[in-house]
Amino acid sequence: MSSTIDPRRQRELARLLDRMGIEQTKLERVSPQGFDWLLIDQSLVHPSFSTTYNNDQLEFVGDSVLRLSVSLFLQEHYGDRTVGELAALRSHLVSDKTLAEIAGIYELQKYVVVSNAARNDSQALRSLLADALEALMAALYINTRDLAFIRKWLDPKMQSFAESLLAIPALGNYKVALQELIQGRWKRLPEYRHVATENNLFCVEVWFDDRCWGKGKGKSIKAAQQEAAAIALQQMQADM
Amino acid sequence: MSSTIDPRRQRELARLLDRMGIEQTKLERVSPQGFDWLLIDQSLVHPSFSTTYNNDQLEFVGDSVLRLSVSLFLQEHYGDRTVGELAALRSHLVSDKTLAEIAGIYELQKYVVVSNAARNDSQALRSLLADALEALMAALYINTRDLAFIRKWLDPKMQSFAESLLAIPALGNYKVALQELIQGRWKRLPEYRHVATENNLFCVEVWFDDRCWGKGKGKSIKAAQQEAAAIALQQMQADM
Repeated sequence: MSSTIDPRRQRELARLLDRMGIEQTKLERVSPQGFDWLLIDQSLVHPSFSTTYNNDQLEFVGDSVLRLSVSLFLQEHYGDRTVGELAALRSHLVSDKTLAEIAGIYELQKYVVVSNAARNDSQALRSLLADALEALMAALYINTRDLAFIRKWLDPKMQSFAESLLAIPALGNYKVALQELIQGRWKRLPEYRHVATENNLFCVEVWFDDRCWGKGKGKSIKAAQQEAAAIALQQMQADM
Repeated sequence: MSSTIDPRRQRELARLLDRMGIEQTKLERVSPQGFDWLLIDQSLVHPSFSTTYNNDQLEFVGDSVLRLSVSLFLQEHYGDRTVGELAALRSHLVSDKTLAEIAGIYELQKYVVVSNAARNDSQALRSLLADALEALMAALYINTRDLAFIRKWLDPKMQSFAESLLAIPALGNYKVALQELIQGRWKRLPEYRHVATENNLFCVEVWFDDRCWGKGKGKSIKAAQQEAAAIALQQMQADM
């Protein structure tokens, strides 16, 4: 499995996992056929560097590893909230913005392998670090088949992001928060438009001042509106 | 844990798990604190029956359990395909349509607890069975922390759906398949419109004959187009 990785690269990756609080001895214990360091290496190689050995498929899986980890975290810690609120929280917690911040905490930019062009484009770099963190989650999960190796370091980060989100007005009820913001500033109200229903999901847009500020999808109109409002709120706060 | 479930209901649920090929002795072995049958029971209670004891939060988690199971299945079995193709396949495999069909195979309608109004509305019933199957996946995962108890019965079903999807023209390349369909029938081409970029995701619509037939989101324009084309194709085939 890990026979062909460069020993220097392996030591570098081991330092990254140390930094994340993942115990190497535990990793080796749960992976009887040997922990596959090459998979960890591959998770940090961006397609701009190589079109054949890169993290695009691991990122495809990692997106789902992240989503399940965050869903379980929310259900365990915020089980008293409505599913609409949990969905709105989740859409923030799994966003590239949140992931790029977590990647920054672990200085993932030091470990990723990317083209120089991508490294020098700050917008691209943010998205690429988010993708690499997702791919790393997939590599850890595929090796261990145990979400504990992800949740151990991810949960505390998600806890702090969730607390910040819930500290905004109306405690995570994004529709109320958006309404308070727009009413407070412009004495008007946002308008929700139900634009489509696809695969039993309602698609809603929220409009204000001739502009669509956010779109949301959900199993109910209410859930879709919450998601749209959460995105609009983030957009408005970014614009201010 | 399982102390308060009605023994008759437990026997009924055990029959359902038997039908799905899940071994009860294994379930008990991996759950040292006792397998929580109440969680299985709750996963099959629709909110139309009770607003306090129902499956809405389990369905929130189950949606992610399903997505990770399907992502791993696709990566393991179709790893030679592009991520765009895998994403298009996944969007079909996790759809309510696919889930309701699988729920039908296990006769889940016999085990769900719903209001009579919901049971007599065939459209509502389909969506409710899909939700209940997702919630059941969450209940199995939360009990065991092991996706094997889901993938054992889900993978063969997904395999057969995936093979049917890939048997349509152009082997899972939905853009090509859609183009062939529209060109063959009407001697024209569909039009892809890039309508927005949200959280680093491209949002694309596919239009033909003054109608939007599908919307897709993706990390690249190409991936978003594939997803939109897959939905449009399904819609057109349903309309024919």
